[in-house]
Amino acid sequence: MHKQTITTSTNQYDVVVGDDLLSTLYTYLPKAYQHILVVTDSVVNELYTEKVLTHLPDSAKVSVHVVPAGEASKSMEQYSELLTEAIVQQLDRKSLIIALGGGMIGDLAGFVASTYMRGIDYIQVPTTILAHDSSVGGKVAINHPEGKNLIGSFYPPQAVIYDVSTLQSLPDKEIRSGYAEVVKHGFISNRAYLDDVLKTDLTTQIDPIVTTEHLQKGIAVKASVVERDEKESNIRKYLNFGHTLGHAIESELGYGQITHGEAVAIGMLFAIRVSEYKFKISLPYDAFYRWLSANNYPLQLPAIPLEKLVERMKIDKKSENSTVQLVLLKEIGEPTSENISDEELTDLLEKFMGELGSE
Amino acid sequence: MHKQTITTSTNQYDVVVGDDLLSTLYTYLPKAYQHILVVTDSVVNELYTEKVLTHLPDSAKVSVHVVPAGEASKSMEQYSELLTEAIVQQLDRKSLIIALGGGMIGDLAGFVASTYMRGIDYIQVPTTILAHDSSVGGKVAINHPEGKNLIGSFYPPQAVIYDVSTLQSLPDKEIRSGYAEVVKHGFISNRAYLDDVLKTDLTTQIDPIVTTEHLQKGIAVKASVVERDEKESNIRKYLNFGHTLGHAIESELGYGQITHGEAVAIGMLFAIRVSEYKFKISLPYDAFYRWLSANNYPLQLPAIPLEKLVERMKIDKKSENSTVQLVLLKEIGEPTSENISDEELTDLLEKFMGELGSE
Repeated sequence: MHKQTITTSTNQYDVVVGDDLLSTLYTYLPKAYQHILVVTDSVVNELYTEKVLTHLPDSAKVSVHVVPAGEASKSMEQYSELLTEAIVQQLDRKSLIIALGGGMIGDLAGFVASTYMRGIDYIQVPTTILAHDSSVGGKVAINHPEGKNLIGSFYPPQAVIYDVSTLQSLPDKEIRSGYAEVVKHGFISNRAYLDDVLKTDLTTQIDPIVTTEHLQKGIAVKASVVERDEKESNIRKYLNFGHTLGHAIESELGYGQITHGEAVAIGMLFAIRVSEYKFKISLPYDAFYRWLSANNYPLQLPAIPLEKLVERMKIDKKSENSTVQLVLLKEIGEPTSENISDEELTDLLEKFMGELGSE
Repeated sequence: MHKQTITTSTNQYDVVVGDDLLSTLYTYLPKAYQHILVVTDSVVNELYTEKVLTHLPDSAKVSVHVVPAGEASKSMEQYSELLTEAIVQQLDRKSLIIALGGGMIGDLAGFVASTYMRGIDYIQVPTTILAHDSSVGGKVAINHPEGKNLIGSFYPPQAVIYDVSTLQSLPDKEIRSGYAEVVKHGFISNRAYLDDVLKTDLTTQIDPIVTTEHLQKGIAVKASVVERDEKESNIRKYLNFGHTLGHAIESELGYGQITHGEAVAIGMLFAIRVSEYKFKISLPYDAFYRWLSANNYPLQLPAIPLEKLVERMKIDKKSENSTVQLVLLKEIGEPTSENISDEELTDLLEKFMGELGSE
């Protein structure tokens, strides 16, 4: 079990990562709560809600609200329904919401917590690898038909309690998706951590000790960045390494065709190539490519017209003044942000797509 | 023109009060904005939107969104529509929302600003006296069918620009409603200010100089309280002087039957009587009653069963552990909070209602 404390402008909270924490979850809360609402999705509910409920103290009044699994539940409708549920269950300002699930649940339940009676406490209990990223940093949100995460707040949890035993139930593509963000945290922080992660074989059973260490280090990288920059104005953008092209691929293929992390993995390959070209350096493109390939990441995409990808990259919410900003590496652990003209971007992308090959 | 600066945990903003500020509104903004969305209601829109638009710089892209006048627009539906409007108008993280109107508009547009792309800038441009209270303190919210302001955030504006010339268009009952909160700020702060306010004749044309002074002082009282306590845990509760019974009367009669401030005025009379009884002191109940009467405040209510009022006071969101907390005065300018048992409350309320008389 590993514990780290994260400091935000409004609070401090612990992130606890370890094996079999669901059964002792309550001991990691910063205080006692009389009234708790567990928010989870239909898949996680079958697997873990009972275990959580069994180990909450008898003195607390606990209710459970289950939303359909899948990104579609990060909607205005589910948000509104959940607020009504909180009112029906008579949650007050001293109540707690437990977000039990992946990033979707954390974002949705966190946004409800941030706006119910102008903000009540919530904790994140992630059940995916990808959520090691989203559960830290205080970003909570729902989607709008026009774009992801357009509606939301900055609102840190009271604790993140990460039971890695829940990760055993993840499908392979979710493991790949989550590990891509772990790799990203390696690329933007330090070589030893990156090398260690790239030794992991994702095709075999998850090792709780190794996974705990990888996640804890990834969380430390993210936490260090968001502590220094809560509002995504300066260094927080480095967390978008691989994401500008990644998001464009995700949107162009339609969500569900490729996971977030799988798309980001391809985005990182591109960002590495651009970094090598821009800074005349050599980065471990080949080693990273081999690891992705060995772990069954999809590396050949259906043919997507280049101009569509460029257009998507330009409307990405991280872009400014309609010029694409790309996060690059001066070396491993040294991210930087560069404006790239449309013309140069198209050239670089064409070359990269040719190298990658298509289906 | 009077300017004061308010410091919150996340920012600093100016509150400017004066005559004919709409025409110079832009000069009070903390920075330039490329893209502005004006949110207003159907009544205020007819009166003041054009003036605001005329004086915004040509370089800014400006759009206007009008919601129906009335508290019913503080709804999930209008909130959702406004977010969609912000997206359709392509507002980005550096855009500005101008909340032009009374408390409803400030609360609704402020909540949209607080959650659009995780928070963009907004300013309050109040057009009611009551909004001198709601525009300061950073509380933004919408209503739920089950209760007022149940969904919202703490999210301070970038500026409050208060043009008292807009108050000339207010109906009498809105002037009474707003001035009740001005009086409240007098009662909880100091006698000279209170005495001054109680000299005002609300039945004649508003004097911009006098009104500016009254509002500016009321805002200073509110600002001083919220600066010391942003989260309504300790001293912020003093702002609820007169509100516990006031809210109960408002809900019991149905919103629209009596204005917020008119109900709070009766609540203050009650709180004064309870204070006199509890602390064996004498407070200017009679002088306040005469002022209310001379200015046509409704002082006789339709008969409401006492137990219904007590029940409402108990579910008021400011109550804790189901015991009613009442804000009382040890003397003028010295508020305090006391728990009152149901039995005592019923006795005191019965006596007070008898003294007040019913319609």
